[in-house]
Amino acid sequence: MEFDAVLQRRTIRLFQQKMVPDDEIRYLINAACLASCGANRQPLRYRVIRRPELVKAFFEHTRYAALVHPRRTPQWGISAPPVFIAVCAKNPSAVDAGAAIQSMEMAAWNHGIGCCWIGSFDPAEVNALLRADDLPVRYLVAVGYPAEGPVVERIGADGSPAYYLDDSDTLHVPKYSVDAVTTYWD
Amino acid sequence: MEFDAVLQRRTIRLFQQKMVPDDEIRYLINAACLASCGANRQPLRYRVIRRPELVKAFFEHTRYAALVHPRRTPQWGISAPPVFIAVCAKNPSAVDAGAAIQSMEMAAWNHGIGCCWIGSFDPAEVNALLRADDLPVRYLVAVGYPAEGPVVERIGADGSPAYYLDDSDTLHVPKYSVDAVTTYWD
Repeated sequence: MEFDAVLQRRTIRLFQQKMVPDDEIRYLINAACLASCGANRQPLRYRVIRRPELVKAFFEHTRYAALVHPRRTPQWGISAPPVFIAVCAKNPSAVDAGAAIQSMEMAAWNHGIGCCWIGSFDPAEVNALLRADDLPVRYLVAVGYPAEGPVVERIGADGSPAYYLDDSDTLHVPKYSVDAVTTYWD
Repeated sequence: MEFDAVLQRRTIRLFQQKMVPDDEIRYLINAACLASCGANRQPLRYRVIRRPELVKAFFEHTRYAALVHPRRTPQWGISAPPVFIAVCAKNPSAVDAGAAIQSMEMAAWNHGIGCCWIGSFDPAEVNALLRADDLPVRYLVAVGYPAEGPVVERIGADGSPAYYLDDSDTLHVPKYSVDAVTTYWD
């Protein structure tokens, strides 16, 4: 896909009930590996959760899109993600994780796959499931084939970034325009 | 450009002495605006520094690639970036900044432009230059047309991520392979 089409990517929270092949999972993680990273230290590690019982256990400890609950809260067996990728690191590594997950999400979109980057989960429960005390989960990425089609709207500096659902159940995601966030310091 | 070609992007530290047009700067910031962001809050603001005296003042407070100093430390008037984009936010917003800058870097590469994401700068000096106490600079992104061609190498779990220059002055950037960083938790 052309890069500009990938740039139109959106977060997906409702998924088809269909497994993502392993070579696609590897394609996503490869994109994360190629992302920018401070001093090239590459502190992130990835754990792939795809056995249904374990996916379900993870799923129960994740939270989605508070502003449009319950219509964008996936349901197990109907719209839940078939795979989670846990992004793990000894130290928080937030900026590196941001770059890696953005790269992963764009790669997914390039192959018709949607992601939901989840920062809102119960860390004690999730880390207990992975028995990964030395390498805690910093973020989860839900991965699957999209069962919704969110759209971007552009807003000015005074616009509200609060996302919302319209009458036809389409999620609208307001994003600031370039002018709203840019100052030229000449 | 196809997405997979953009994925081959690398950090650029040596630049041609040629201005980047304003519409390209806007294209980069638009890509940042479209990146993933926690709860869609969009806390980041961008300041574009392109007046040569001010670029020079910023440049003097930035540091580059300690492992390959001085050969990948750009020189003013020879290989320094023509533009900086300052990524600013009231709160640290590291994970959002990581996603936005990754998106910006990939968009740049799609248009033949290179970036160096700089976390190593003197914040007191840089913030004083921008007189931006209420919206501090979190990261700087140097932007310009590439005057070098770094290459990726893939390494296993025991490999060293330390980048290095070879005899022909090409920068080699080791990146872990998918197998080196992935565990299947089945």
